[in-house]
Amino acid sequence: MSDHATDSWEARAAAHSFYGFTDMPTIHDRGTIVVTHGEGPYVVDTNGRRYLDANSGLWNMVAGFDHPTLIEAAKAQYDRFPGYHAFFGRMSDQTVMLSERLADLAPFDGARVFYTNSGSEANDTLVKMLWFLAGAERNPGRRKILTRWGGYHGVTAVSASMTGKPYNSIFGLPLSGFLHLTCPHYWREGREGESEADFTARLAQELEDTIAREGADTIAAFVAEPVIGAGGVIPPPEGYFQAVEPILRRHGIPLVSDEVICGFGRTGAVWGAETYGFMPDAIISSKALTAGFFPMGAVILGPDLADRLGRAVEEIEEFPHGFTASGHPVGCAVALAAIDLIADGGLLDNVRRQTPRFEAGLAALAEHRNIGEWRGKGLMGALEAVQNKATRTPFASDLSVSERIANTCTDHGLICRPLGQSIVLCPPFTMTDAQMDEMFDKLSTALDTVFAEVA
Amino acid sequence: MSDHATDSWEARAAAHSFYGFTDMPTIHDRGTIVVTHGEGPYVVDTNGRRYLDANSGLWNMVAGFDHPTLIEAAKAQYDRFPGYHAFFGRMSDQTVMLSERLADLAPFDGARVFYTNSGSEANDTLVKMLWFLAGAERNPGRRKILTRWGGYHGVTAVSASMTGKPYNSIFGLPLSGFLHLTCPHYWREGREGESEADFTARLAQELEDTIAREGADTIAAFVAEPVIGAGGVIPPPEGYFQAVEPILRRHGIPLVSDEVICGFGRTGAVWGAETYGFMPDAIISSKALTAGFFPMGAVILGPDLADRLGRAVEEIEEFPHGFTASGHPVGCAVALAAIDLIADGGLLDNVRRQTPRFEAGLAALAEHRNIGEWRGKGLMGALEAVQNKATRTPFASDLSVSERIANTCTDHGLICRPLGQSIVLCPPFTMTDAQMDEMFDKLSTALDTVFAEVA
Repeated sequence: MSDHATDSWEARAAAHSFYGFTDMPTIHDRGTIVVTHGEGPYVVDTNGRRYLDANSGLWNMVAGFDHPTLIEAAKAQYDRFPGYHAFFGRMSDQTVMLSERLADLAPFDGARVFYTNSGSEANDTLVKMLWFLAGAERNPGRRKILTRWGGYHGVTAVSASMTGKPYNSIFGLPLSGFLHLTCPHYWREGREGESEADFTARLAQELEDTIAREGADTIAAFVAEPVIGAGGVIPPPEGYFQAVEPILRRHGIPLVSDEVICGFGRTGAVWGAETYGFMPDAIISSKALTAGFFPMGAVILGPDLADRLGRAVEEIEEFPHGFTASGHPVGCAVALAAIDLIADGGLLDNVRRQTPRFEAGLAALAEHRNIGEWRGKGLMGALEAVQNKATRTPFASDLSVSERIANTCTDHGLICRPLGQSIVLCPPFTMTDAQMDEMFDKLSTALDTVFAEVA
Repeated sequence: MSDHATDSWEARAAAHSFYGFTDMPTIHDRGTIVVTHGEGPYVVDTNGRRYLDANSGLWNMVAGFDHPTLIEAAKAQYDRFPGYHAFFGRMSDQTVMLSERLADLAPFDGARVFYTNSGSEANDTLVKMLWFLAGAERNPGRRKILTRWGGYHGVTAVSASMTGKPYNSIFGLPLSGFLHLTCPHYWREGREGESEADFTARLAQELEDTIAREGADTIAAFVAEPVIGAGGVIPPPEGYFQAVEPILRRHGIPLVSDEVICGFGRTGAVWGAETYGFMPDAIISSKALTAGFFPMGAVILGPDLADRLGRAVEEIEEFPHGFTASGHPVGCAVALAAIDLIADGGLLDNVRRQTPRFEAGLAALAEHRNIGEWRGKGLMGALEAVQNKATRTPFASDLSVSERIANTCTDHGLICRPLGQSIVLCPPFTMTDAQMDEMFDKLSTALDTVFAEVA
C-alpha cells in the first residue's frame, strides 16, 4: 500500500469494484494488485513490480501478454470493421471465416458453430439447445445434465449448476436436474487397495446406475472437461473416456467435451478429446480460442446435434437465442490469428516441447514431504499440499496453506493459483526453458518457506 | 446469391454457422448478408451494397461503424495491455478507472461495479447476487424475480426467464419463480374507455396484488427497462415509475433498472431512470457502454445493495463468481472512450437535437392508414402495423408484414428491425439531418409498397 492510501491505485480499486473469486482476507492484508502491462509471460503492476504469470491470466493468455501477431490482428480489424452482430441472417465476413476454420479443426465433420462471449454462455447455450431439442423431439422430460464433482463449467445460474463445487450452495444452486457424479480423481477418491483400472470401472458403473435410476430419456447430456481444470487440474484415470463413451452411446446420451481450458493446445493436442481418444458430440470452447485477447465462446455442434437442431429450428422458423456480440468481427479476426499461431505458428509445438520439462519440474517438487501428489497433462499441472503424505491428510483449512504459498510466490514475482489445497500451474504456451526454470525455482522457495511455517 | 452458390459468401455462411434470432424463411428466400465494413451509420456487404443501419447494429453501435476515437482507444490499449482478468484481487488499471467513471455517472452515490461480458450475464449475475443475499440474510425464500411481459433481459436460462416473451416456452422456460406482470403498453393493453392514468393505476394495483399474493419476503427484485426495447420500444404510461417505486420501497423490494438499451444516452439522458425520474437500487448495463466495439456488461450496485453484499461476502471470505474476461482492459479502455464521447463529446447532445426530427418522422408515417401507433423516446421508436386502424386489429401473422417491410427496406439500402407487427428504429447517436431524412424516406416507400400488397 502506498503512503497516500486514499488515492493509491489499491484504494481506488477497492472503492468501486466488487471482487469476484477473491480471498477477502488476502485483500485486507495485502491490497489489490493493479496491473498496467505485460511482457511475454510477465505482467507488471502500478508499482513497477514484475510477475511471471504461471496462470496465463486465467488459463487463457496462452500467447503471453503482448504477442505482436495478435495485437496486429486486433488492430487491423478495428481499422476494418470494429463491431457487428450475427442476428437476422447478417454477420461479418470474419465470422464466416472463423466458422469455417473451426469446422476444419473440429474432430468431427459437419460442425456448426454458435458464438457466445464466454464459456459460461456457451454452456448455458448448450443446455438451452438441448432443452429446446427435448421439446421439439417430443421428449420434454429429457432435461437433466450430468457432470462431475470438481468439474467447472461457468458461473451463469445454469453453468454454475453444472459446475461441481460446494460453494454454489450459497446461491441455492444447483437448479434441480443438474446431477454430479464422483470426481474422477484417483489419488483422492480411489479406495484403499483399489487399482486405477478398478476406480475407472467403478465410475463407469456409477454412470450406468445413474442412468438406470434416472431414466435415459430424462438425461439431455453428459458434459465433461477432458482434464478437469478449475477443480484443481485432474486428468482422468486410465481408460476413463473409453469406459464412459460406449455407455453414453448405448443410451443415446450426447457426450459433450467442455474444452474451455483444454481446447487449442493446453494438453498437447488441439483438443483434449484428441489427447484422450474420444469423440464428442459437441465441443464447448472459449479462453485460448482468442488467447484471451477478446471475450469469446463457442458451441461447436457435431453433425448429429447440428442436424437435429437444424430440423427443429426449421419447424418453428426461428431459433430465439443469441447474444449481441455473438460472432463479433474483432473477436473472430483475433481468433483466426490465435488459431493460426497455436496450430501452425509453433505454440502447440512448444507445448509439446516443454511438457517433459514441466512434468520433471512438478515431479521434483512432489518429492517434498508436504506434497502429496503431482498431476497434469501438457502444460497444465498441480501440486497437492498435504499435512501428512502417507495418510494423505490435508492441512487444517484455517491455515490457508495454498493461499499462503500463492502469496509468498507473489512476493517473489511469481503468480500461481491456489485451488483447494493445491497449487495450479498453467503457463503460457510461449514459455522458454529459462522461464520454466524461473517458475519452478520460485515455487520451490515458496513451498520451503510456507511448509517450514506450518509444519 | 452469386452465380457460384457453393462458394459464395452466402453459402459459406450457411454451411457452418447456426443462426440466432433469424427468420429462416427469409434466409431461404434471400440468403445471408455478409458484412465487411462500415462508414458512419452505414454498413457495406460483400457485394458492395450499402445499408443505412437504423438498428445501430443491435441498439449498440451508437457511434456508428467506424468512429475514429473508439478505434484509436481500442488500438492504443491493445498496444499497451491486450488482456487480463479481475479475479484474485488483481485487475488492470483501465478497470479501476472505468469503475470510478461509472460510479461518478451513476444516479446514486457509493456505487460498486461488477463486470460481465454481456447484458445477459449482467442480469444473470444480479439474480445470483440476490439469491446469495437471500441466503446470507437468513431469508432463503426471497428468490422470485418480477419483470413484465414484453420486457427483454437476455438469453441465458435465467435472463431468458426474466424476459417476457412467449417464445421462451420452447426451452421449457421460464424457470419457476420468474413472474411476469402486464406489459405496460397503454395502446395495446389499455381497456375500452380506460384513461392512461387509470391504466397506470391498474398496473400499480397488479403489482400490489402480486406482492400480497406471493409474499413480499419471497420477492428478490423487480427488474424493468425504463423503455421496453426488444419488446417493441414501449415507453411506460404516464406516471408509471412514480406509481411503482413507492410500492416497492414500502415492501423493501429492490427496483432494478435494466439500462442495457436505454443507458448512455438512448432516451436523451445518460440513464433511462433519469428520463423517467426514478431512483433504481441497481443498474444493468451493456451495449452502448462500449458503443458495441467490445463485449461488455456491468452490474452497477447502488449503496444499499453494495453494502449488504459486501458484508455478506466478508462473512464467507470470497464471492465465488466472475467471468474470465470480466473487466478486460481493452473493453474498459473502449468504454472510457465511449462514455467520454457520449457524455462530453457531443453524442448525447445530438440525440437531444435529433429527437424532434425523429419524432416528427415517426408521427408523419403514423398518418398511414395501416399504422396503428407510433411510440418512442429519444432515438428509439416504433411504428405498429395494423390491418384496421380503428379496431387496432393486427394483420394475420402468416402475412409476416413486419418481415416484408424490413426486407423491402433492405432492398432499398435501409436496415430496420421487425418486432412482432412493429418496425423498430434505433439509429446511431451520430445521425445527421440528411441521414434521418434518408431513413424515413426509405421506410415510407417500403410501407407504401408492402401495405399495397397486403391491404
